[in-house]
Parts: sequence; C-alpha cells; structure tokens
Amino acid sequence: MAKLRMGMIGGGERSFIGAVHRIAAELDGQIELVGGAFSSDPDRSRRSGESLYGLTPERCYGSFDELLTSETSRVADERMHFVVVATPNNVHYAHAKAALEAGFHVMSDKPMTYSLDEALDLRDTVARTKKVFGLTHNYTGYPMIKEARHLVRGGAFGNVRRVNIEYIQGWLATAEETGGNKQAEWRTDPARSGAAGCIGDIGTHGENLAEYVTGLRIESLCADLTTFVPGRRLDDDGNVLLRFEGGAKGVLSASQIAVGVENGLTLRIYGEIGGLEWSQMEPNSLIVRWPDRPFEVRRTGAAGVSPPSIEASRIPAGHPEGFLEAFALLYRNFASAVHDAELGKEINSEDYDFPSVNDGVRGMQFIETVVASSNQGATWLEFPKAS
Amino acid sequence: MAKLRMGMIGGGERSFIGAVHRIAAELDGQIELVGGAFSSDPDRSRRSGESLYGLTPERCYGSFDELLTSETSRVADERMHFVVVATPNNVHYAHAKAALEAGFHVMSDKPMTYSLDEALDLRDTVARTKKVFGLTHNYTGYPMIKEARHLVRGGAFGNVRRVNIEYIQGWLATAEETGGNKQAEWRTDPARSGAAGCIGDIGTHGENLAEYVTGLRIESLCADLTTFVPGRRLDDDGNVLLRFEGGAKGVLSASQIAVGVENGLTLRIYGEIGGLEWSQMEPNSLIVRWPDRPFEVRRTGAAGVSPPSIEASRIPAGHPEGFLEAFALLYRNFASAVHDAELGKEINSEDYDFPSVNDGVRGMQFIETVVASSNQGATWLEFPKAS
Amino acid sequence: MAKLRMGMIGGGERSFIGAVHRIAAELDGQIELVGGAFSSDPDRSRRSGESLYGLTPERCYGSFDELLTSETSRVADERMHFVVVATPNNVHYAHAKAALEAGFHVMSDKPMTYSLDEALDLRDTVARTKKVFGLTHNYTGYPMIKEARHLVRGGAFGNVRRVNIEYIQGWLATAEETGGNKQAEWRTDPARSGAAGCIGDIGTHGENLAEYVTGLRIESLCADLTTFVPGRRLDDDGNVLLRFEGGAKGVLSASQIAVGVENGLTLRIYGEIGGLEWSQMEPNSLIVRWPDRPFEVRRTGAAGVSPPSIEASRIPAGHPEGFLEAFALLYRNFASAVHDAELGKEINSEDYDFPSVNDGVRGMQFIETVVASSNQGATWLEFPKAS
Amino acid sequence: MAKLRMGMIGGGERSFIGAVHRIAAELDGQIELVGGAFSSDPDRSRRSGESLYGLTPERCYGSFDELLTSETSRVADERMHFVVVATPNNVHYAHAKAALEAGFHVMSDKPMTYSLDEALDLRDTVARTKKVFGLTHNYTGYPMIKEARHLVRGGAFGNVRRVNIEYIQGWLATAEETGGNKQAEWRTDPARSGAAGCIGDIGTHGENLAEYVTGLRIESLCADLTTFVPGRRLDDDGNVLLRFEGGAKGVLSASQIAVGVENGLTLRIYGEIGGLEWSQMEPNSLIVRWPDRPFEVRRTGAAGVSPPSIEASRIPAGHPEGFLEAFALLYRNFASAVHDAELGKEINSEDYDFPSVNDGVRGMQFIETVVASSNQGATWLEFPKAS
Repeated sequence: MAKLRMGMIGGGERSFIGAVHRIAAELDGQIELVGGAFSSDPDRSRRSGESLYGLTPERCYGSFDELLTSETSRVADERMHFVVVATPNNVHYAHAKAALEAGFHVMSDKPMTYSLDEALDLRDTVARTKKVFGLTHNYTGYPMIKEARHLVRGGAFGNVRRVNIEYIQGWLATAEETGGNKQAEWRTDPARSGAAGCIGDIGTHGENLAEYVTGLRIESLCADLTTFVPGRRLDDDGNVLLRFEGGAKGVLSASQIAVGVENGLTLRIYGEIGGLEWSQMEPNSLIVRWPDRPFEVRRTGAAGVSPPSIEASRIPAGHPEGFLEAFALLYRNFASAVHDAELGKEINSEDYDFPSVNDGVRGMQFIETVVASSNQGATWLEFPKAS
Repeated sequence: MAKLRMGMIGGGERSFIGAVHRIAAELDGQIELVGGAFSSDPDRSRRSGESLYGLTPERCYGSFDELLTSETSRVADERMHFVVVATPNNVHYAHAKAALEAGFHVMSDKPMTYSLDEALDLRDTVARTKKVFGLTHNYTGYPMIKEARHLVRGGAFGNVRRVNIEYIQGWLATAEETGGNKQAEWRTDPARSGAAGCIGDIGTHGENLAEYVTGLRIESLCADLTTFVPGRRLDDDGNVLLRFEGGAKGVLSASQIAVGVENGLTLRIYGEIGGLEWSQMEPNSLIVRWPDRPFEVRRTGAAGVSPPSIEASRIPAGHPEGFLEAFALLYRNFASAVHDAELGKEINSEDYDFPSVNDGVRGMQFIETVVASSNQGATWLEFPKAS
Repeated sequence: MAKLRMGMIGGGERSFIGAVHRIAAELDGQIELVGGAFSSDPDRSRRSGESLYGLTPERCYGSFDELLTSETSRVADERMHFVVVATPNNVHYAHAKAALEAGFHVMSDKPMTYSLDEALDLRDTVARTKKVFGLTHNYTGYPMIKEARHLVRGGAFGNVRRVNIEYIQGWLATAEETGGNKQAEWRTDPARSGAAGCIGDIGTHGENLAEYVTGLRIESLCADLTTFVPGRRLDDDGNVLLRFEGGAKGVLSASQIAVGVENGLTLRIYGEIGGLEWSQMEPNSLIVRWPDRPFEVRRTGAAGVSPPSIEASRIPAGHPEGFLEAFALLYRNFASAVHDAELGKEINSEDYDFPSVNDGVRGMQFIETVVASSNQGATWLEFPKAS
Repeated sequence: MAKLRMGMIGGGERSFIGAVHRIAAELDGQIELVGGAFSSDPDRSRRSGESLYGLTPERCYGSFDELLTSETSRVADERMHFVVVATPNNVHYAHAKAALEAGFHVMSDKPMTYSLDEALDLRDTVARTKKVFGLTHNYTGYPMIKEARHLVRGGAFGNVRRVNIEYIQGWLATAEETGGNKQAEWRTDPARSGAAGCIGDIGTHGENLAEYVTGLRIESLCADLTTFVPGRRLDDDGNVLLRFEGGAKGVLSASQIAVGVENGLTLRIYGEIGGLEWSQMEPNSLIVRWPDRPFEVRRTGAAGVSPPSIEASRIPAGHPEGFLEAFALLYRNFASAVHDAELGKEINSEDYDFPSVNDGVRGMQFIETVVASSNQGATWLEFPKAS
C-alpha cells in the first residue's frame, strides 16, 4: 500500500509541533511528508523544509496558496493527499477551508478555529466537500485512554457519577511572552489565540478527553477564569464546575501557572461500582478501583487489557510508549479514513476513532461557554447541545 | 512531669474513633485515660471501659452527667483534667459546654457543633471559662503539613495563586447506612450529623487544612453538592469553587462515593515561584516544585527539612509515621496548653499549634455557607469574616 | 485485664530505640512501662526515667542488678512482668539471661547476642526457665507483611523461585562514628556490635523477614562484604547470593552507605504463578503480580485483604499505619504469650506470631556464616540447619 | 541532507524487533528503509516487505546474499548505505561480516555474536573495513540515562561504591517455547541463542548499561544461574556479584521468570556523596539522592537537567518519550557517523555515543565469564580486560 502524501502549513523553525506532526504521521509507515509552506517568509520556509524535514526545495513553498496551487497541479501519484494545519489558532479556519475546497483532506491543530462561527462554517465545509477532517486532540490516542473508554462506555463501572479532569502546566507562570518565547507570544495574544488562553489551549483537551472517555455530554457549567500574570491579556488559569447529562458531576481545572508542573493532564472517573484514574505523564498505567477488591493497575499491552488498548499499542508491555506514539495513533486512524475516501468510499469520520470536525465544534462551544460564564461572574450556563 | 488525666464521652464499642483518641492521647507519654462515659447504656459503658481501655469499673460511668459529677468530686490529684468529646455531631455542643462549665478542658471531635449558632456560643463559653479547647482536625498534625505551612507562610513560593484541596472516599458509594453500619447511620442522618453530610464530615477537614497551611481565608465560594445514593438524606459528594483573600483561587472536592478510594485527602498549592503537593495516604513525602530546577521530595525527618516538621516527628527518617502519630501531635500540643493552664498561666490557644474553637467556628461557617450556596443553585456566597 | 508491667534496660537519653519501645509497648493499652535502668550512670538513669518516661525516681535504677533485685522484691501486683533489653549488642546476652533467671520474661533488641555461642546458650536458658522471650524483628509486624506471608505460605504463588531482599540506608556513608554520633559509635565498634556491622544491624532483619514470609530456610550463601568508609572497622555494605531449601534463589543486599536512602527495606518474591513486592517506606501497599491479569495493590485494611493482615491493623484503610504500629504488633502478640504464661499455661512462642529465641539463633548463624564466607573470599558456605 | 538508505536482514512477520528498527531508524527523518531480506523464504520476505514496510517487491529479497548483491549493483544514489542485522544470535556474525566486507555499514542486534571468538573476529573486520558498526544496546538512548552518565562520570557523586543493576521480566515463567511463541523458541534454544539464555538476552543490556553510565569496568564476578522452567535448556534467571575497577561493588540480577513483571530494567548507583535511581518503565524520571538535602527528581527535558539529556530529547518536558524514541537516538548518532564516513572522514565510533563493536566484544566476554562462573559452582572469575 503506497504511502499517503502529506503537506504542512506552519510548523517551521521554532515550532515544536511541526516536528511532532512529521514524526507522528510517519511513525506507522503509512504517511510521508512531501512538502509544505512552513513559513510566510519563502526563505525561511525553504530553510525549514530542507533542514528540518529533508525536503527538496521545490516543494518548500513560500505561501499557503502556492502550496495548494502547486500541489493541485501535480500528477495524481505525486500530489499530496492531505494538509496538516499547524499554524496559530486565528488562521486554522482559513487554511483548513481553503485546503478542503481545493480537494485536500485536512488534519488540523486544536482548538479548531478562532471562533464558534468559524467552527460551524468549517463543519459545513467538511460536509459539503466530503473530505476527511481530523483534529489533533492527541491525548485520546493513548492505549490506556482506549482502555478507559472501553471500561466506562462498556458499563464496567455502572453509571458515571464523578468526573475530575485536570490539565495543569507551569510554563506560563511568569510573563514568558515578553521574553521572546514565540510559543508564549501567540498563545497569550487574543488576536491569534482567540477568546481564551489556557482554557482554549489545554482546557479543551480536557473537555474533549472527558467526553471521549465517558460518552457523556456536559450540560451546564460554571467557570471561574483568572489571569494571574500581570499584563497578560488572556486567562492563564481556570476552574470549571461541570454537570453532565445523566447526572454526573465534575470539575475541570486548567492552569498554565502551576509552577514546576510539566504537562499534568489527569482524568479520574467514578461510577456506581468502580472507577479509574489516569495521568498523562505516566500514560501506560491505568488505575482501576473496585469497591470489593484491591485496586488494579492496567498497563499498556500487559495481561488483562482489552482489545481497543491492545490495538493502540505497538510494542510489548513494559516498553513504554509516549506522546509521539499516541499522536501517531490519530494519524493511523485518520490515514484509514483517507485511504477509504481515496478509494471512493463514503466515509463517516466517527467510524474511525479520531477527533473530528464535530469535536472541534464542541470545543469551540466549550470555550465560548466557559468564557461567557466567567465574564458573567462565574454563573451557570447551559452548554449548547449539538447544533 | 505527672501525666494529664483524660476522660472520654462516647468512643465505646463499635466506635473506631474512641480507640484512636486513647492511642493518640497516650502516645507521647503525657496523658493517661482514666475514665469515661462510653455509652448511654451503663452496662455497655462499663464493658467498653474495661475491655477496650482496661479501666476500673468505678470510672466507667453510665452517663455524661455522672462522669462530670464524679470526676469533679475526686481529689485534685486523681481528678481528670480534660474530657474528649467523641460523640455524634449533634451532642458535641452540649457535652463540650457542660464540661467547660464544670471546669474541665475539652478536646472535641469535628465538626465542632451541629449548627453555627452553637459554635458561636461555644466560643463564648471557652472565652468565659478560660479553659483549653481543642478540635481534632488531626490532619494538621502530620510533619509534612508542618513543612508545607512553614514553606508557604514563610514566603518560599511568593503569593499563593492556586489551591487544590480534595478529600475523597468511597465507603459510602452504596447505602451502607441501611445495612447496620453504625458509622454510616449517624453520618448520613440530618438529626445527628447536621446540615451537611460529606461536606461536613470531611469537607471541613479540607477547608481547615487549606487555611492552616496557607494562612489565607476563603472569601467567597460556589458549591455544587449532590446526593448520589438513592434514599440518602444528606450530600455525599460536592465540588466547591473557592476565592481566597489576596486573590488566590481554588477548588475543594469532597466525596464519599469515589468508589474504591480509601482516604484520599490531598493538598496542592501553587504560588508565584514554587508549589507543593501532599497526599495523606503517603504522608511522609512532600513534593516541592520550582520553576528552574528539578522538583524535590521532602521527607519526614530527612535531610533538608525545617524545624517545625522535625519537631513534629518522633523517629528517624524512613521509619514511617502515620495517622495515629499525627493525631497524637494534636494531643502533645494541647497537653502543653493544659499544663500551662493548670499552672495558672493565661493561655492563648493560637500559641500552641492545635486546632482551636476559632477553627471550629470557621468550620461551621464553611458548612453553612456551602449548603446555602448549593441550595441556591450553586451560586456565589461571601464567606463570613471572623465574627 | 490489668496491664502488664514492663521494665527497661538501656533506652536512655540519646537512644532512639528506648522511646520506640515505650510507645510500641503501650500502644495497644496492654502494657505499661513502670521502671528501668536507663543508663549505667545512676543520675542519667534517673533523669531519663523521669524526663523521657515520666517515671517516679524510685523505679529509675542505677544498674541492671538493682533493677532486677528491686523489682523481684516488690509485691506481685506491682512487680514488673518483663524486661526490655535495649542495650548495645555485646550486653544483650548477659542482660537477657540474668532477667530470665530472675524470673522475668524478656523482649530483646536484635541481633540477639554478640556471638552464636551466646545465642545457643540463651536458647537453652529460655527453655530451662520457661519464660517468654521475644526479639524485635519489628518489620514482621506490618499488616502487609502478614498479607504477604499469608499469600506465599498459602501457596498463592506456587513454589517460590526468586527472593530479593534489600535493606539499604545512607546514614553511615561518612565516618559518623568519629563525630559524636552515639548510634554510629557502637554500631561500628566490633567490641560492642559483634562480628558484623551493617550485615548484623540490618542484614539480619532482611534474613529474618525473607524466612518469615516464605517459610523457606536459606541453605547456603556466598557473601561479599565491604567496608567503604576509611577507618571503619566493620562492614558497611554487603551483597549475599542465597540458595533456599526447595530450590529458590535470591539476593540479599544490605548497605549503610547508600547515600540519601533513608530506610530502604524491600522484599520481592516470585513464585511459579505469581509474585509480590513490598517496600517498608510505603508499608501499607503490597503489589501482587499475576501472569494473566493486571497487577493489584493490596492495601492495609482495604477490600480484599486476608484476615491475618486485618487483625494486624487498627484503623480504617487509608489511615496510614507506620513503624510504631508494626512494632507495637510484636508487643501485642508477646503480651498474649506473657498473659498466658502468667496464668500458668505452658506456652510455645511459635504459636503467638512474634520473633522468638529461635529466630535469634538463626540470625546469629546468618551473621557468622556471612562473615565467614566473605572472609574466605566470598565463597559458598552451608548455612547451618536448625541445631 | 538526503536520507540514508537502510536495508534489513530478518525482521519479517512475527518479529517485533523489525518494526522497532524501522520506526526508530526513520523517527528523526534521517534514514529510510529501502529494502531487505526479511525471511529466508522469498515469498514471506516479499510479503513482509510489502505489507509491513510498504516496500516495492523488487527490493524485498529472498536471501541475504541477494540483498547484498543486488544492492551493491545499484547506482550510488539508490544503493543502501547500511544493513540492520535483526536475525537470531547465531547468524549475527555471518551477516554482519558479509555486509561489512561488501562495503556496507552495519547496525546489529545484541548480543553481537554467538561466541566470543566470533566477536573478536568481527571487531577485526570492522577495523579492517573501516565501516561503521553499531549495536542496539538501546537502553543507553534514554535522556535520563544520558543525565545519569553525565552526573556519574562528571564526578557529582564522588567515587562510585555500589551499583545495582536489575533486568527482570516474567514472560518466560512458563514453557512459552513449547507453545508456538517464536520469540521464546529461538531465545531458549542453545543452537540459536548461544551459551546463555536470560543472561545473554537481557543480562548483557544490564552489564552494558552499568558500564556505560559509570565508565567503570567489571573486574571480576561470581554468577549463580538457574533454569527454573522444566525442560528448558538455557538459564532463565541469574544473580551475579560484581566487583568493579576502583573498588565499587554491585549486583546484577536478570530474570525472565519474575512472574507479572513486564520489562523491569533498573539501575541504581551510589557514590561517596550522592546517588541515583532509574527505572526503564518510567524512563523520564531520574531520582537523584544527596546526603544533606531532599532527593530530587530530574525529568526529561525539564528544568535543571544537563545538555546531554536535553540533546537526547525531542519534545517538551511532560510529553513522555519512550522506548522507540530511545532506540531512535542510537540511530541518530549512528547516522552521524555514517554520514561522516560517507564523506570520507576517518571515524572513531566512540566519538558518536552509540554502542560499538567494542561493546559487543565486552558483552560476549560477559556472557562467557558468567556462564563459566556458574558452571564452576558460582565461583569468582576475572573478567577479561580489553583484549
């Protein structure tokens, strides 16, 4: 089976996510990066393409338009199949939409767009163009998250009662954005990041993960966002009370000022007859608790785990898989959908187990609802149902 | 120095806290249990006193009144110095007040009273009688909590920004109270427990611990309490958004339906330039995080810890101290105050580092505010300032 | 049931183990310290007895002889029942033997004697006097060690194949003995400590624990001891290859120069169909591994543990019990035997689950065999069978 | 910079290591798998090449000879640069030697050869052909191993005193080799595996890691190997006492019958003034212990780590890197050497930080010495110096 050809927009020098996309996409041997517009500066784009990705100069484009035009004009067995959108949030929409309309599938960074309106329009565009659209809520790709989902959705714990999601980091505890940190600059800039800072950047991962694992939708929420670092224009910390359909309650905490914490995404779910705890920084362990016997620790690939987590793993138990492998799983499943689409099948993204344009809409609804709640004094707001 | 003589009300058969009090009080060799009214049934009281505590029958009283009257009539060097109140919440107030007025010092279980009004009156009684009053927020007695307090209050982390307190358990995930579990019965009974279930029983420990370590008062809160177990009459789960004086934000989660969790009290605090994480089930470790160097794990009694935690420890590092030792520390400090009071000194409980009647008032304010917030649809309420 | 009366030899100022004995003995309310010879200096003995233990001056004796003579002459319901031997190793034998012959039961620190010959004679003395003799291999008192023993001896894992015991500390990584550290002084002094340093002080705990849990005797060993700190006269580190009856193999490592390690006693056992891992510094967890399902973590007092560990615990799961509680369990079981003996029953120490004089003999055989092996160039030696 | 072209021998269907090589080699974008002889059965080789690796049929060769001949005859900018030897141990030597002599660089699985004689001859072949030779002691590729090496070799802990290496697994606790497990079959077959089973398969990783981190050579050893599973022809468990140059002592334990353990490679090193502990299953943490302050946990990519570990990491702290990333680091460094060699530079493998032919010789010496020691009754043997 020939490899799918991938193009990239963004992801040049000083980006860390570009390299992540390249590694993750190629990891399972199904995809190959063939070109990109890595910067709006043609020289820098070429430099990035050549030095970071080993590409030929002719496919290191100076603009996104050039990427689309040139690739479109290539013969079918050279032309890229899909584009990765690895740019700041404010341009996700334009890039993704243009690529879809030019006939390319799209894998986009999250949050999906700058605003909910853009998200809704993008959903329409996906529907209209019938292209495959993926979103990099990469934490859903961990084997033990598959295990958790399998357990919770399979009813192992009965009805869910309590959900704790936390995503805390410490890297923005000081005004990094004023010291030349490019990542900090755009993420704290309302013009590029959107209505939210921390809650958009990482809170949405938490929201997505909780709904992905439980299958329950948040019905209403009450959010208290804070900007702790003087001079910063977007939230860098927030706590959100959650009420889920079916009666479960929960809390989502997100912070980028939790000094010294690296990438503290944790999920805990307690149902009527069991519960689980997972932590991204030790992702190959899943604690499973029962009322009547010792707690157990399920491990990636080890004895007693379920098929969905086994399929998500590549190497024997005890050989740790990490962030890149989880990220790669999104690409693996996305590639299946793209293959099928290229074969002319009518595909439904929801059948392939990767975050879709619907997740992206949901994420933008979450951001807008959280920000509104906080702005109104941390009051309760309904979370929009699927619209 | 002769041992202080302790009496007990409650704590008889089927109580676990009575034995805890006896062990903790006597652990440092300064206190001796000499008598008690362990049950309102005289036979059971005597049986408890003799079999559980090895007491002579004559000091195993059939009622609290008898305890007070008989002990008062004893000669000074036999008479008990203080009473432990180890009864359900609804009678704490009556017992404590009567003991104080009869001239005895008091160590009381928490929450301090059944209602805030009782708490305020008890505070007046303490002031009037000039007796020593202690409250068993025992988790403040751990060496690593002393270390945490020393670090936070000493400014090691700069201003506090984020406080996460969690106290979750799983033992009430089903209707234990209908199956003959005495502990479950009274704790889920509004007539005996008070306005709150879980939030009163364990949530107040969290509130007290957070304020004890940070020195910051909660200014306002928004609470969402739930009763998950059908038929139960009090909350068994709750999440509370917190705003502290000085601008710190936080979340307090309390639950007794977190299936499989034993006694999950955790505290995390992040300031401007450092943070800490502590978990009661591994109480001899304190994770301390910094922005610019690896995180460190401070350990009870080990190299590099501060005097307040060293003083709270009894044995060399690596020889774990646990729940009983922490509980005993309250008694050690309480005993110092009682000794001083018995020598005729005017004592201020706040000087001796044990939870006082003021903490008890604070706890009752917390319960009433949380319950009111939740009842009003989880809205924000001011937390009363010291009154 | 009246409390048993305990006397102590040693355990005065600057000793940490004296206070441990007092707390542990009294913790379960069955024993009371009534007197002792805490130092060979009468003033210091009295000072220790009064300030550390709150004893009346008349029972703070200036010598061991005085302790025995005076207590013997007391009326039966005042006289002490047993003596704790808390002195350096070289005088254990003389003190224990004299106490037994004077009609007192004995609880002794380990290693039991200075030499194997003394140990064998002491065993005869115990047999002859029919007194109860206990030895403080205190680590056997942890609930999760009871659980481990129950599992292994009950055949849960099939035949044992591999045993790893490790007891490492860092406190003697430098020449503490030259800087006024009393504990370091006698433990590194051949005249007081015996033929071995580290391997006698803590290695014997490992040997005892391994045999206690598995029920298997070491048949032969090959030991490589080292003295790393210049000028030190006894070993401060050692590794021992082990062969057990029945074919199991193992390693025992003991060290007091493992810089920064507090009290790292760990035990791991792997059988044909399961295994376990335990660490003293987090003593309330027992990892149990299986070939065909996730590993489980058994926890003190929590769901799914066995009666022997439940009986060894005092408080609900999640309320950590530590070193003192484990130590106290030895005293609880020892007290049962003493009570029975005082009632005139013929008792067999092995029926009461506390380390006995036979364990002490075994420990001295271990020390002598290890030292001989190491001195002969780390060659294999048979471990004496019970003699 | 154009990608290096890699060929593979072995690594077909039912091999897990072939896929690992492909992913690891390509992960950093510098290498591309272009062909291979994946099986001695031409059909199976083609099937593997196409389905596992997406290769064109013409470069899926039916034999190793065909691989070498065909690739040699290709034009320079198509020809493979190096061969990965991913076959059972008994054919490593023949394949590696033939490839070197045909002018290709080689990356070989470990242990390097079937016998020490082969290893010595292969070392000569490498010297003679001046090709680059790498060996997949992949655990040296973890960032925290780089950190450990930097600390130990940089003298942070003073002279090394104690080294504990352990590599235990449970997957061979029963006779897997009789049930159709291909991995188990050849690893327990003396004809294919060599003189040792467990000690060769994983014990050599331990030996290599210990020497890599400390820079100290093992001078002598005493090994006790066991075959626990009935009918098995090679050791499945072993314990080895170690003496290092400079006076350090240690223990190496290796087992494949530690039921339920996944891939338990741990390394602990204690020097005069500090120590460290690392565990492969949580590879991004390195515990560093000091005598006079709390222990610290260094984390991959986090604040306070040293340049060698930073260079070995690819993504921000808290985004876990695992087994594949560590494996890929060997390829990254190997690729640098190959690039330089292709430019005509005289290269010394030791300058590039990947395991070399010298490590391979060392490993074979270790195997032969361990087996001889065990066969002679677990006696001490000198470990050959570099020869």
